[in-house]
Amino acid sequence: MTDQPSQPTAAMIVIGDEILSGRTKDRNAGHLAERLDAVGIALREIRVVPDETSKIVEAVDHLRRLHTYIFTSGGIGPTHDDITADAIARAFERPLIEDPRAIDILEAYYARRELPFTPARRRMTRMPEGAGLIENRVSAAPGFIVDNVHVMAGVPSVFEAMLDAVLPTLKTAQPLTIKTIAADFGEGTFGDALAGVAENHPEVSIGSYPRHDGKRYVAEIVIRGRDQGNVDAAMADVRSMLENLAGVE
Amino acid sequence: MTDQPSQPTAAMIVIGDEILSGRTKDRNAGHLAERLDAVGIALREIRVVPDETSKIVEAVDHLRRLHTYIFTSGGIGPTHDDITADAIARAFERPLIEDPRAIDILEAYYARRELPFTPARRRMTRMPEGAGLIENRVSAAPGFIVDNVHVMAGVPSVFEAMLDAVLPTLKTAQPLTIKTIAADFGEGTFGDALAGVAENHPEVSIGSYPRHDGKRYVAEIVIRGRDQGNVDAAMADVRSMLENLAGVE
Repeated sequence: MTDQPSQPTAAMIVIGDEILSGRTKDRNAGHLAERLDAVGIALREIRVVPDETSKIVEAVDHLRRLHTYIFTSGGIGPTHDDITADAIARAFERPLIEDPRAIDILEAYYARRELPFTPARRRMTRMPEGAGLIENRVSAAPGFIVDNVHVMAGVPSVFEAMLDAVLPTLKTAQPLTIKTIAADFGEGTFGDALAGVAENHPEVSIGSYPRHDGKRYVAEIVIRGRDQGNVDAAMADVRSMLENLAGVE
Repeated sequence: MTDQPSQPTAAMIVIGDEILSGRTKDRNAGHLAERLDAVGIALREIRVVPDETSKIVEAVDHLRRLHTYIFTSGGIGPTHDDITADAIARAFERPLIEDPRAIDILEAYYARRELPFTPARRRMTRMPEGAGLIENRVSAAPGFIVDNVHVMAGVPSVFEAMLDAVLPTLKTAQPLTIKTIAADFGEGTFGDALAGVAENHPEVSIGSYPRHDGKRYVAEIVIRGRDQGNVDAAMADVRSMLENLAGVE
């Protein structure tokens, strides 16, 4: 598929020892991927890194220069192992401060719930100087934005709430037209013919995603492109290719 | 926690546009994380990259120098969009060949199933010259090993079968001792006390993993260390900390 230079791109950085140890399965990356795809932002990389400042800094520093938007998840809670705010401050070489707006939000939130605003809870107001806030309608403690980096929570319900708050602020694009067709054969059966179709339709991207259903391989063929007519033309060729193969088998 | 220089480390590279678009949820990274953790190999990074040669080459080239083992998933099937073998050959600057052992395996496999050995199926014998093979007991087409890079399938049942074949060949270490305790409070309640416990037990790593159960936060506290006695001592302090807090609430 030819490039779409105007399409915004994104990368995600998942901060989490618990994902890397297999203890927890990440759900935020898949959710982000779906939501971005729906608004025409191309998620181009996901990195899962450990809870280590240097690793977070390295990933942020590299990826923020390559993409329109960066999203991080995890490490902004109240415990000693929540070090994402420190890492983002270091990546941007900005001082880490207790944000006065975040203090106001959390003071009011804990007062309403008649809970003490402990030093641990106060950790959740720490962010690089000059950051923007991301609203958290689930549990108040805000995420934050520095430049193109959106720093969000790891708990899925909170991550999703923060993403709801962020999405309307992003530059979006016309989502690609995407058509999918199920192939009732393994890829080995249609691979040669599909390569021919792909060669005849360079203006779209044609992917094949195999599954093993326990007994045999089947696949889904996915056609993606900016122009509906091009996608439809390629789909027509894929469909007649599959019909021809069904006739032969 | 102090370093364990002898512990092997690993990184995973998931090759898949379908993961980045949200169409498919990756299951292989979580599976790999669990299996490596159980044999004392520390998974230190997961990267999901698109089906683009330059992106795969960049990730392989960077990560293989940092870790004992690299595992890739995806992009070794029979269709035109399966480009992982090409990328690995380029990363190692080796010629891409049709491996004679792989040809033998697949010729026999398709002959038994009375299927033609098409050019598409023959694509699955392509690998860098000098690669070792990874057995695939599910669907025959082998994965391959170049230096410390293990190139495996994206279909989960095949990925898992290949990992079964690879694991006994890896240098393992004593798995860490890991103890987990459920905290019936949010992190804000115990964060300060837990930071104190962590400071008193620098020889272990103490992580806190919050969940929002729909109504309130709870958490799991996980203690990891090489020495069982150290882990037990830290756990005793975490337990009495939680009991004290329960008495106060």
